[in-house]
This record gives sequence, structure tokens and C-alpha cells, in this order.
Amino acid sequence: MPRYALLIEYHGGPFSGWQRQAGGQLSVQGVIEAAFTKIGPDAPTIAAAGRTDAGVHAAGQVAHADLSRDWDPFKLAGALNFHLRPHPVSILAAARVEEDFHARFSAVERQYLFRLLCRRAPATHDRGLVWQVPHQLDVAAMAEGAQHLIGLHDFTTFRATQCQAKSPVKSIDSISVTSHPVPAGMEVQFRLRARSFLHNQVRSIVGTLERVGAGAWSPDQVKTALEARDRSACGPVCPPEGLYLTRAVYPSDPFGG
Amino acid sequence: MPRYALLIEYHGGPFSGWQRQAGGQLSVQGVIEAAFTKIGPDAPTIAAAGRTDAGVHAAGQVAHADLSRDWDPFKLAGALNFHLRPHPVSILAAARVEEDFHARFSAVERQYLFRLLCRRAPATHDRGLVWQVPHQLDVAAMAEGAQHLIGLHDFTTFRATQCQAKSPVKSIDSISVTSHPVPAGMEVQFRLRARSFLHNQVRSIVGTLERVGAGAWSPDQVKTALEARDRSACGPVCPPEGLYLTRAVYPSDPFGG
Repeated sequence: MPRYALLIEYHGGPFSGWQRQAGGQLSVQGVIEAAFTKIGPDAPTIAAAGRTDAGVHAAGQVAHADLSRDWDPFKLAGALNFHLRPHPVSILAAARVEEDFHARFSAVERQYLFRLLCRRAPATHDRGLVWQVPHQLDVAAMAEGAQHLIGLHDFTTFRATQCQAKSPVKSIDSISVTSHPVPAGMEVQFRLRARSFLHNQVRSIVGTLERVGAGAWSPDQVKTALEARDRSACGPVCPPEGLYLTRAVYPSDPFGG
Repeated sequence: MPRYALLIEYHGGPFSGWQRQAGGQLSVQGVIEAAFTKIGPDAPTIAAAGRTDAGVHAAGQVAHADLSRDWDPFKLAGALNFHLRPHPVSILAAARVEEDFHARFSAVERQYLFRLLCRRAPATHDRGLVWQVPHQLDVAAMAEGAQHLIGLHDFTTFRATQCQAKSPVKSIDSISVTSHPVPAGMEVQFRLRARSFLHNQVRSIVGTLERVGAGAWSPDQVKTALEARDRSACGPVCPPEGLYLTRAVYPSDPFGG
């Protein structure tokens, strides 16, 4: 059966997360699988690079599916998009891939963006697309705290207690913390790259760095928390609405970009 | 009575427009006036720099109101924002102004942004915040067509038939047309500056320029349409959801920015 990779953008707001749920809650996987059943005889189970949590967005999720017929990739994307309406899920591209391509297991890097809006006046256009705090943040302090997390570490402090990964040891390749002015405030963007992430790892890191930015923690306390290897040493886990899976990287880009 | 100016951001989606309606539809003016009645004894009628249409957004609308007591401007903005919830309307700043300041009549320039998303895959995060077309657009051709509209002209072709302005003669100071890549497509941004605009003028201009970008019109046909001084010579008026009132300029910035 020919295998196809999909490049997917979605707004996480309406969904219980990527993964199809037994309870019938709306999931991104579920609505895409339902769209497949509308375009042909197949009812494929699709696998994704990152199983995003409830409320988390994607700008570059990748999934794959096996179909019983050949599709022009351009037409496949269009047909799926037609049947995905009105859900805020969009197939940006489709591509025929080799049978040994696996959206999850072939990925050699994931990239996440977290958008944090610092201002007192409530968000309007970006509501649901950013995490908002009303106070100022020290970007340099957050960047300094983030440096302690780069490289290979035991991230027990920064993963959900229900995380199912066998090992808490992961390597983070980079964390950048940048800011730009927005009307009446500032937006801080955190960009993280790693081969793979633990459950709630990005939100645990950003929530902790926010405490550094607010002055409640010193940058060095991030190192202390990491070395504690104790979930209770983590700062507050931040909400999902600022988080975006932006890219999954493969040895060869299936979309030719 | 002390007069206050407000700097306002809103998502136009839920509203029938800026202006309070007799029929009781939700308007931006109406929800702000209602918030004023919650914070004190006043029920001021507020005047705005631009009376935006249904669905049009603002990132820098300005309005003024007369109140019977003195307010700390910072607390006034906070109190209004508290009572504006859950509407997507946000007071970015408030400022005490002179009694001869008028949000509409003192403004010497308005600035608008129009966001046009060119891609086949439906918008997700930006849904309701951009106008989307599925085809490619020639940005250089649109910029060339826009040049014909700069300066003092009779804009009868580019205003709504129900426009109540006494004269169709207006001066457009600048129109820029830029683009940047977005996942699987391109976003085109039109930025227009003028002392004031006619009803539907920006949407008539952008709708016409889109036809130029698509290749259906030559850039010179924009000049022909302008010189016709005939509403029926206009291209299609584009939808409101890509339009933002970004700034109203005063001889002295009331917000000190």
C-alpha cells in the first residue's frame, strides 16, 4: 500500500489533543481519520511526529497514512481539506514516501515555539493563541536560566508524572528566548529544539522560566531544580494555548522543502 | 468634565461594527459605553477616530469620553477592561486630554492594514483575521496598480454608494504592498495612510488590487477605473476580516508614545 506523509497545521483550541480518544472527544487525529473515510475506501490509522496535548497548536505537524490507491499528493491534500471543514485543521502538503518512513520514529528532531504575551490589557486578536501574563519579564534572565537546560540531562523535574517515556534522560539542542514589542506590551517567544521531548517538558520549562523572568526565581535556581530530579522542584506548568509544534525534521524532507 | 482618550484594540468578528445600533446588535461602541456605566455614575457617549464596519478589526482605534470625576488613566483602563470581558475588546491605554481634543475631528491621519493570505490550505490560527484566496498573486503588479491611487483624486469609483461623505475627493498619502512567506503560502500586507477615508474605500481598493495581482486586470486598469468616477468600474469589494484600523494620528500623541 502506498504511504503518504501529511504536513498539518491546526488550532488546538477545540481539541482534546492530537490522539484519538476512546471517549469520543474531538481529537485532531480523529477528524483527519474521518476525512480519509470520506475520500475513499480506506480507514487508515494515522501516526504523528508529536502527540500534542489538549489546546496545543501545530504549524508543522507531520503524520503518515497507508492508502490502497495512488493519489496525486496535491489532490489528496485538497480532498482532505474539503472534508476537514469546518474544523481548524489544514493539510499544508502531502507527499508520497517510502514504506519505511514513519512520522514518529523517523523524525530526528522536533521544534516547538511558545508565545508568551506580557501586557495588562487582555489579548483580542491572539486570544487562545498566546499565554498572557500581566507583568513585565526579564528576557535576559530567562535566557540565562534556559542555558542550564541545554544538552543531555535527566529531566525528571521537567516532565509530567504520568509521562510514559522509559527514560527521563533527553538532550535539548537549543532554547532561544527572544522578545519583540506589541501594542501596549511585549511578546516573548521561546523556541526549543530536541530529538524528542518528554510529556509536558516544554510547558514545564516555559512555566519555570517565566518565574525567572518575573524575578521570583534566580536563573541559577533552574540548575538547582534540574539537578533535584524531582517533579516537585519544577515551577508551575504553563497553559497550553501558547504552544506550537512548528516542525518535525527527517533525514530527508518528505515535502522537498 | 475631564475628557479621556482611549487607545483600543478589538477583534471585529462578533460585532456589527464600531457604531452603536438602534436595533441592539452588538457594537464595539456599545460594549465600551456599557463598561463605563459599570465603573461610575457616568454614561458617556464615546466618539471614535474611525467608525469601522462589521467584521473589521482595530489595533489602534482611538475614542474619547467625558467623565464627571478624575481618574488615574492606568486605573481607568484596567477598570474598563475588567468590565469588557468576555468581549474581545481591550483598552490598551487611557490618557487625560484637553477639552478641545476630539478623537474623530482632531485626527490628522488614519492608518489601515489589510492582511491577505494566499494559499490553498485553509487558514487555521488566522481564521477570521485574514482574507484568504487560493491562487498566487503578483505583488509587483499590485504595487504598480496602487501607485495610480496615491495623491488627491476623486474616489467615486472606490467608495460605497451609501457613503455619506460630502465629497468623493480625498488624498491618499501612501499605499505599500509587501509580502512574506507563511507555511505553504504567502501573506500580502497592504498598508494605507490618509487624512481620512471614504466608506468602504480600503476594501474597494484592496479588492481591485487583488484582481490586478491575480492577472485579471492590468495595473493600468486601476487608473482607468479611478478616472471613470463610476462605482460600477470598481473591482469586487473584499471581505472585512483582513482589515485593521492600526493607528489614528494627532498633532500631539495623547498617549505620549
